[in-house]
Amino acid sequence: MALMLLSRHLSPSLQQNSRIFAAGHRGISQAAAKIDVEFDYDGPLMKTEVPGPKSRELLKQLNRIQESRGNYLVDADGNRMLDLYSQISSIPIGYNHPALLKVLQQPQNLSTFVNRPALGILPPGNHAETLKESLLSIVTMSCGSCSNENAFKAIFLWYRVSKMHIDYSTYIDLEITNILSIMPESMSQSLSVKANEKTLSFFFQNKERGHNSVTKEELETCMINQPPGCPEYSMLSFMGGFHGRTMGCLATTHSKAIHKLDIPSFDWPIAPFPRLKYPLEEFVKENEQEEARCLEEVEDVIVKYRKKKKVVAGIIVEPIQSEGGDNHASDDFFRKLRDIARKHGCGFLVDEVQTGGGSTGKFWAHEHWGLDDPMDVLTFSKKMMTGGFFHKEEFRPNAPYRIFNTWLGDPSKTLLLAEAINVIKRDDLLSNAAHAGKVLLTGLLDLQLSPPVITVLTNQLAQHSADPPKQHESNTTAQDTRHQEHMVCVKMDIRDNQVAFWSQPCVVLGGSGDRSIRFRPTLVFRDHHAHLFLNIFSDILADFK
Amino acid sequence: MALMLLSRHLSPSLQQNSRIFAAGHRGISQAAAKIDVEFDYDGPLMKTEVPGPKSRELLKQLNRIQESRGNYLVDADGNRMLDLYSQISSIPIGYNHPALLKVLQQPQNLSTFVNRPALGILPPGNHAETLKESLLSIVTMSCGSCSNENAFKAIFLWYRVSKMHIDYSTYIDLEITNILSIMPESMSQSLSVKANEKTLSFFFQNKERGHNSVTKEELETCMINQPPGCPEYSMLSFMGGFHGRTMGCLATTHSKAIHKLDIPSFDWPIAPFPRLKYPLEEFVKENEQEEARCLEEVEDVIVKYRKKKKVVAGIIVEPIQSEGGDNHASDDFFRKLRDIARKHGCGFLVDEVQTGGGSTGKFWAHEHWGLDDPMDVLTFSKKMMTGGFFHKEEFRPNAPYRIFNTWLGDPSKTLLLAEAINVIKRDDLLSNAAHAGKVLLTGLLDLQLSPPVITVLTNQLAQHSADPPKQHESNTTAQDTRHQEHMVCVKMDIRDNQVAFWSQPCVVLGGSGDRSIRFRPTLVFRDHHAHLFLNIFSDILADFK
Repeated sequence: MALMLLSRHLSPSLQQNSRIFAAGHRGISQAAAKIDVEFDYDGPLMKTEVPGPKSRELLKQLNRIQESRGNYLVDADGNRMLDLYSQISSIPIGYNHPALLKVLQQPQNLSTFVNRPALGILPPGNHAETLKESLLSIVTMSCGSCSNENAFKAIFLWYRVSKMHIDYSTYIDLEITNILSIMPESMSQSLSVKANEKTLSFFFQNKERGHNSVTKEELETCMINQPPGCPEYSMLSFMGGFHGRTMGCLATTHSKAIHKLDIPSFDWPIAPFPRLKYPLEEFVKENEQEEARCLEEVEDVIVKYRKKKKVVAGIIVEPIQSEGGDNHASDDFFRKLRDIARKHGCGFLVDEVQTGGGSTGKFWAHEHWGLDDPMDVLTFSKKMMTGGFFHKEEFRPNAPYRIFNTWLGDPSKTLLLAEAINVIKRDDLLSNAAHAGKVLLTGLLDLQLSPPVITVLTNQLAQHSADPPKQHESNTTAQDTRHQEHMVCVKMDIRDNQVAFWSQPCVVLGGSGDRSIRFRPTLVFRDHHAHLFLNIFSDILADFK
Repeated sequence: MALMLLSRHLSPSLQQNSRIFAAGHRGISQAAAKIDVEFDYDGPLMKTEVPGPKSRELLKQLNRIQESRGNYLVDADGNRMLDLYSQISSIPIGYNHPALLKVLQQPQNLSTFVNRPALGILPPGNHAETLKESLLSIVTMSCGSCSNENAFKAIFLWYRVSKMHIDYSTYIDLEITNILSIMPESMSQSLSVKANEKTLSFFFQNKERGHNSVTKEELETCMINQPPGCPEYSMLSFMGGFHGRTMGCLATTHSKAIHKLDIPSFDWPIAPFPRLKYPLEEFVKENEQEEARCLEEVEDVIVKYRKKKKVVAGIIVEPIQSEGGDNHASDDFFRKLRDIARKHGCGFLVDEVQTGGGSTGKFWAHEHWGLDDPMDVLTFSKKMMTGGFFHKEEFRPNAPYRIFNTWLGDPSKTLLLAEAINVIKRDDLLSNAAHAGKVLLTGLLDLQLSPPVITVLTNQLAQHSADPPKQHESNTTAQDTRHQEHMVCVKMDIRDNQVAFWSQPCVVLGGSGDRSIRFRPTLVFRDHHAHLFLNIFSDILADFK
């Protein structure tokens, strides 16, 4: 019965979102298939069509994920597919990693999986010390949408309150040390403000309520959803962005009409996200102008909404627009956006739900930007196995139970995440991701030359050319060459023959927009997996010559 | 390290929400302490103050929940507390139930806990058969707020679309058989509409878009949050209700200002929830009038918002307002409310996040009402260990990916829930809950007589008197006498001495409002646990004589 709960297979319907590559009967390069991950397979192995006869028959009793390992997803017929999409980018260190299985098998961990506590009402008792010890604050949630919803709320509260209301005595601060160890350095540096009352004051002095107490009118009107208790604050977002589908998140999501049609929304400001032209090195000037235009519109719309009395309390942005078609912008764009947020007093929220967790070669994608002043709030989920957000000290709500729900995350997920982080460090998987990503990207760049079937989109393309474009030069370091390799988007320009790509699966990829595919492999995706894919892909492209 | 992630203890701060009863040095009745649950303890056992010296010292290394069993929460000092709050009502069959531990220890289940799939993109392949076989539709989510958010969306979509748009071929339907087995009977009966096109048409014929296609204007305006693409639909909710804290949910939550203050909201209609007078048998007429007044306001506000062009697409209500102070209403009230929803074409959503899962003596609290026409959507979480909602067939979205997120729930939680449901059936825990609840309620009713310190609030009080009030008579059955026993709310009227109740914990209870406590024990709470608590409570009350 238990297994039945999980049985499922690839149906034709999923092709809208999850693309599967055909290997057909072509030989797969043996040279590419080296096993260097203890729990991985040595390559795909197709025995039947998918779904095969056993799958169809045993669908209710067999759980495909059970036999999957590393980068390979296995179905009931024993078909083993190279998975470069990894459950929409949410499997950090491969299927059934032995370190995670071990976490589950340790007797002392059993109760964590069986008894889910209400974390909020039973907070750490050593709260005072925790505050001193922990470098930053973290709030855990169950998924990406909840993380963004609550991050919005933290920003709205911050916008309204003064530091006079801050009461540290009872607010829930979960010390999750292993998670703190992967917190963005830029944010932990900002914590000097904690010891510096003047700086703290600076952050609050222009906020709306100032040092005044809450009025009776505010308390009464908030209960009936009306201002001034529920102010008409807004979050600014970008066209093409995706931040989740609960109603607050959905008001900042603008990727596909199907997500939003027929659902009431907030009248919140939207700015254009740069649409860069490729190859980047051929359109340096045009792309600079495009980014400048978008930034100008950000400022215009902030002013416009302020006049409409719908003040912009925060700005939310993805480091790479993922659901919206893998749209990239330069590091310079994000630095300037951060400056605009500060200039206008808006909280700056970076949504790393899809980009976080190491797939860009750094733990967080925004670390590539070189920000002077870090973002205020960072949301995460997917590869982080749970949801949540990091925030600067001054974004701590001014009273307990303002940011709260029953579970506030899930310790069993945190337990697994802690171990996944151990493995990422132990096996240097960030370097691995960067290296394997570079192999993949370089290979795809070669493949795009002939036949002219694919275009490779990434904001780092220029790094691989002899003449890097101007907007990158100012901040280029040795590390820049391993930028965002895993987030590669391949735009396919293959007219009517695309369908050939999706039959007979032996590789699982993510769709993106109408005719693009995106790569979201795990962090144990290695050079030989990249070569393996490139061989398969090359064979397919050969058909188009 | 792993254990450290979970370490926490009771701090004074939690007393705002979680009340702890004092046993002091009083003897605990031995007669009450029978062990009839294989994994339970035989009573509380206090060795130190809480938090004790070892707790303080070992806080970072010891996980208190680890040694907890059945109805008892154990801390690092070995203090064993009778827990009648059970992690805000979210532990269905007690701490560390052996059946759940076994689920974890079975090798074939390991991968389910380690690999969290993206359920939506890998749906069951036998989708066509599933549609025929499964009686109802279920969508799984990660928590209560997400469940309500997505239920709202399902209602908005239903309100807008016509059946002509329904495409069953790709929508994700998760057949979770063991969960389906506990689905409200009333809803599965409604599925006759599936085979009856006329009935189906009836449900859609008055909806806004009718049989027309989506317009270009709708597609364009929805991307920028504006009507007509994002219509100004609303959800009607009740003052005192609590439905979660994400921004859509929060617009229907009206329990405490601290939840809502400073967060932008929707202008959605709010109606008063009945405030019954107790004892019910003394205020039959007044309470009837109060309920009639509230229902009249529901209709008035629906008409008012229709005129404002903010049409009420749905009504959301809790069977018992829990966070808002355990407010009850009669079965008759809910039947009439359901009629009003149908009359005005509003979707009827019952939020059973806190009441579902058996704690009222039936699996769902609304089953006590005796509805002619079942609710349209039912949301659940907490005791159900995951989140989600059941919905009538006609509330299925008209296209795939309209109700969707990365994880769509968590198979590892479903695995545990399936086993919990097995145990509930095997051990007849619903009857147990009803019986132990009656013992608790009867005992509390005795205790309220002298001294006059407490008032017991429940809509079922009258069942225990010789003269049941009129509004219950029409629908009374033999089963009615075991109504909602576990949801008892005790209102404490003990002036300044309340604080005595909260020191030296040996019983964990939930606070509710300013001076009320609520009981939310697990389903393995038995008669002897009730007696045990009543003895402790009686000793404390004796001090007030």
